[in-house]
Amino acid sequence: MSSFVGIILLLIAVEIPGSFQHDRGHSKFRGPQVSQTAGTPWPMPLSYHTQATFTYVDAGEFKFTDVDESSSCSILEEAYNRYFPLIFGRRPETLFFKSSFKAPTDAMTELMVKLEKPCKDTDYPMLESDESYTLDVNGNQAMLSASEIWGVLRGLETFSQIVYQSNDGGFVVNNTQIVDKPRFNHRGMLLDTSRHFISVPILMTNLDAMAQNKFNVFHWHIVDDPSFPYQSEKFPKITNMGAYDPETHVYTQTDIKNIIEYARMRGIRVVPEFDSPGHTSSWGYGQPDLLTKCYTGSQPNGQFGPVNPVPNSTYVFLKSFFTEIAQLFPDHYMHLGGDEVSFACWQSNPEITSFMKKMGYTSYSQIEEYYMQNLLNIVGGLGKGYQIWQEVIDNGAKVRADTVVEVWKAGWEAEMEKVTKLGYKTLLSTCWYLNYISYGSDWMAYYGCEPFNFNGTDAQKQLIQGGETCMWGEYVDGTNVISRLWPRASAVGERLWSAKEINSAFLAQSRLTEHRCRMVRRGFQAEPITGPGFCREEFGGV
Amino acid sequence: MSSFVGIILLLIAVEIPGSFQHDRGHSKFRGPQVSQTAGTPWPMPLSYHTQATFTYVDAGEFKFTDVDESSSCSILEEAYNRYFPLIFGRRPETLFFKSSFKAPTDAMTELMVKLEKPCKDTDYPMLESDESYTLDVNGNQAMLSASEIWGVLRGLETFSQIVYQSNDGGFVVNNTQIVDKPRFNHRGMLLDTSRHFISVPILMTNLDAMAQNKFNVFHWHIVDDPSFPYQSEKFPKITNMGAYDPETHVYTQTDIKNIIEYARMRGIRVVPEFDSPGHTSSWGYGQPDLLTKCYTGSQPNGQFGPVNPVPNSTYVFLKSFFTEIAQLFPDHYMHLGGDEVSFACWQSNPEITSFMKKMGYTSYSQIEEYYMQNLLNIVGGLGKGYQIWQEVIDNGAKVRADTVVEVWKAGWEAEMEKVTKLGYKTLLSTCWYLNYISYGSDWMAYYGCEPFNFNGTDAQKQLIQGGETCMWGEYVDGTNVISRLWPRASAVGERLWSAKEINSAFLAQSRLTEHRCRMVRRGFQAEPITGPGFCREEFGGV
Repeated sequence: MSSFVGIILLLIAVEIPGSFQHDRGHSKFRGPQVSQTAGTPWPMPLSYHTQATFTYVDAGEFKFTDVDESSSCSILEEAYNRYFPLIFGRRPETLFFKSSFKAPTDAMTELMVKLEKPCKDTDYPMLESDESYTLDVNGNQAMLSASEIWGVLRGLETFSQIVYQSNDGGFVVNNTQIVDKPRFNHRGMLLDTSRHFISVPILMTNLDAMAQNKFNVFHWHIVDDPSFPYQSEKFPKITNMGAYDPETHVYTQTDIKNIIEYARMRGIRVVPEFDSPGHTSSWGYGQPDLLTKCYTGSQPNGQFGPVNPVPNSTYVFLKSFFTEIAQLFPDHYMHLGGDEVSFACWQSNPEITSFMKKMGYTSYSQIEEYYMQNLLNIVGGLGKGYQIWQEVIDNGAKVRADTVVEVWKAGWEAEMEKVTKLGYKTLLSTCWYLNYISYGSDWMAYYGCEPFNFNGTDAQKQLIQGGETCMWGEYVDGTNVISRLWPRASAVGERLWSAKEINSAFLAQSRLTEHRCRMVRRGFQAEPITGPGFCREEFGGV
Repeated sequence: MSSFVGIILLLIAVEIPGSFQHDRGHSKFRGPQVSQTAGTPWPMPLSYHTQATFTYVDAGEFKFTDVDESSSCSILEEAYNRYFPLIFGRRPETLFFKSSFKAPTDAMTELMVKLEKPCKDTDYPMLESDESYTLDVNGNQAMLSASEIWGVLRGLETFSQIVYQSNDGGFVVNNTQIVDKPRFNHRGMLLDTSRHFISVPILMTNLDAMAQNKFNVFHWHIVDDPSFPYQSEKFPKITNMGAYDPETHVYTQTDIKNIIEYARMRGIRVVPEFDSPGHTSSWGYGQPDLLTKCYTGSQPNGQFGPVNPVPNSTYVFLKSFFTEIAQLFPDHYMHLGGDEVSFACWQSNPEITSFMKKMGYTSYSQIEEYYMQNLLNIVGGLGKGYQIWQEVIDNGAKVRADTVVEVWKAGWEAEMEKVTKLGYKTLLSTCWYLNYISYGSDWMAYYGCEPFNFNGTDAQKQLIQGGETCMWGEYVDGTNVISRLWPRASAVGERLWSAKEINSAFLAQSRLTEHRCRMVRRGFQAEPITGPGFCREEFGGV
């Protein structure tokens, strides 16, 4: 514990001078306005030492230099291309290009990058990837070191954040030593593209924002009851009948490959969720007999319920469908859903009733377990691991040892205790549902939610892989998804990356305010969440 | 009352067929998805008759035709330029340009526009302006008639909304007869540009959205405690010391003239608010001795309170300052604020205490009244009318007969009763504070707030000029102001324009869903507020 105390004290020491660096002479501090730090990173690194001594960075001469070029790959080269404009600006109207500032001759001109394990162009991140890195800035010398490419990506982001623009127009960086690694390996964000469609460019914009907040899993809740935008090759009729518009409101196989590639280059895994047996209305229009027919008395009433777990045809379909998914998505994990299965329709259906009798089932959760077990066996047979919502475990299904159970319901503390006691890897999302909005600085509540706050042994806590922040789509589409997510999600990003003891919203707010403005400068519609104030560069002009 | 019943029945009759016109063959109605009307106007006109019979509109040949060219002016000509792309699309990716649809030879090729009172290039809208119009579409003949240019603008908007695109790619319009005028003359929106700066382009975008929702007053809460972005010619030091950044975060005199002109062309008045004596912290940095010095014991403590109402220099300043404002803003009304004056600092100050003794005042609201009375006399002497927050009346100030009192506090029903009993024109804003967000379809509550729901005679109710929806800036800037306002503000727009009896959110939601998608198609980031669904054209692609 003692090492963390050191970090916290240092953080305070850094924040107070930082907050004055950004103030202008004319602009006195005003009561309700949160001050902004200058050049502090978000999320806070594990160990962060910085001094007031700074050096200029020569934007005109600056380059990234591989210590060993033979260990490089296209992931790294593209990252360099990305980070240059993130640090120095791209648009002609940014201060950099307006500025007549000339860097001094002893300014920093390179960041040395040392990658220990050579990367390959085709590398794909995993739950077990090593994202640790060290960053050392001393005078005009700067060195970033990491074992894996994924650590380099995280370190490049941190470097891009500690370089800041001083009032004379020059870019500067303080002497800084960082030793960093994430607290949790799984730092995810769920987007729902079924209730409203979100276009590919906006999904990519969001992947950029995720990377800049050190998120590493895009949990793509791609289909659900309202629409089926996934363009299936084997079952085009499901898409044609289930999408809002099969010509425009769909993700083609090429779109999906492009998104996976875009995410991979940023060290982000794409875990697709095809939720079943509930939340599948949109599957039914183009796949007759997949869903349970609901009955009124002895007659079908035209309504449909969850997937029909009885006929063999259901599992033939699932095997074929998930084989396609397993081939398209390279991630080891697939999210199989399993949440919120309504039993009313099953109860009304005589085929289900007679099957339950035959099997000796006395409760509908047993037939749900029967369905999920079959599905898990199919997907496990494809060599994939799976992520599931908590109900699957609550209903007693047997799952693979590497299964990741996602806890999302109220009373998460008891559920985390139970799931980890069963020995499963676990994710928390209950307290990070960003679709629920409320007035004011609600990020503080997200920031304060601590995944370890449940009764359990150290071994149980080791099973916590991290968490996911969720943006369900009832009231969100391309018009507002970015501004509603950011920087509220940044609060979750720091909770999942930084040390447990970095948990004071009061101390965090000046850094978050700077981080928000940094995101705005980089072109994101990141909304103000810490009260009145301003960014040097605002969205939409100035 | 009977005429309204007819309207309501007709509305129901229209909505149901309309909702099916937009459905695609493949896309079955899904439980939670609100259907969309096609080609119905928002806000609902006073009298709206439409039939299933429709005609094509030839986008290639279409033009607006003045019945009497001599009555036209630049306001009208620019409106024609604006409405052509609003109806038919501008961007190459819109369906119009993709479509290979050829309009039939008997398609509509013009809208005849009959303006009774000739307009002048310099016309500026007023509280008393006549915005009524009639619109008659019969086969391929269409005629818009209005007494004043402001009615033509409203009618052009309505025409642009009843033209819609059918599934064959052609534009169509149903046979329709509309007789329309607003229920209230003042349909305002307050934006706060002090707590966060909002750039000129975004303010203009919002003026477009306002016009398309038939709002007619931009209440510009331009300065407040946190910052003073108004660039004063006479008092540049206030701006230099009070703006967040005097180079970038300011509205120059030219900016303001451009905004007024942009609004005027759309029939929108700009009412500036320079709130005092409270909410003036940002004025004080560059105008020494304007604010009250707060004391601890017998010594000033370095803090400042409201404007100091005692010295003559205060009123010399106010006269000079408001003379500048009165010359810059052409509207008859100026909003003078007067809300939320804290007495704590006045109580601590010996100069105030001794002045109160001298004047025989026994309460601080008397000195507040003294200040406001002096200010009102100054502004009244400049020939301007004023709009004020309710506290000014609550504190007993005597105001001009044409004063507009804005009710904003909880318990508005009793306040409206009181203010109208005193004979003042009144505006309601209490129930339309859009900065307060909550999860879900909160627009229904705004839609349901009825300004006439207070105890009062018909004569009292005649004094209600309308209302204002307010977007205070604590958590809003250019990143999110448009998506947070629209289409939530549209609900207020219909409440203020349409008949009292058009008040069913259930009936409104299909029209509002279409209207939201229309705004998205026109380029606004209007967020989804009626649950899962889609627009043909989404923001950010498709």
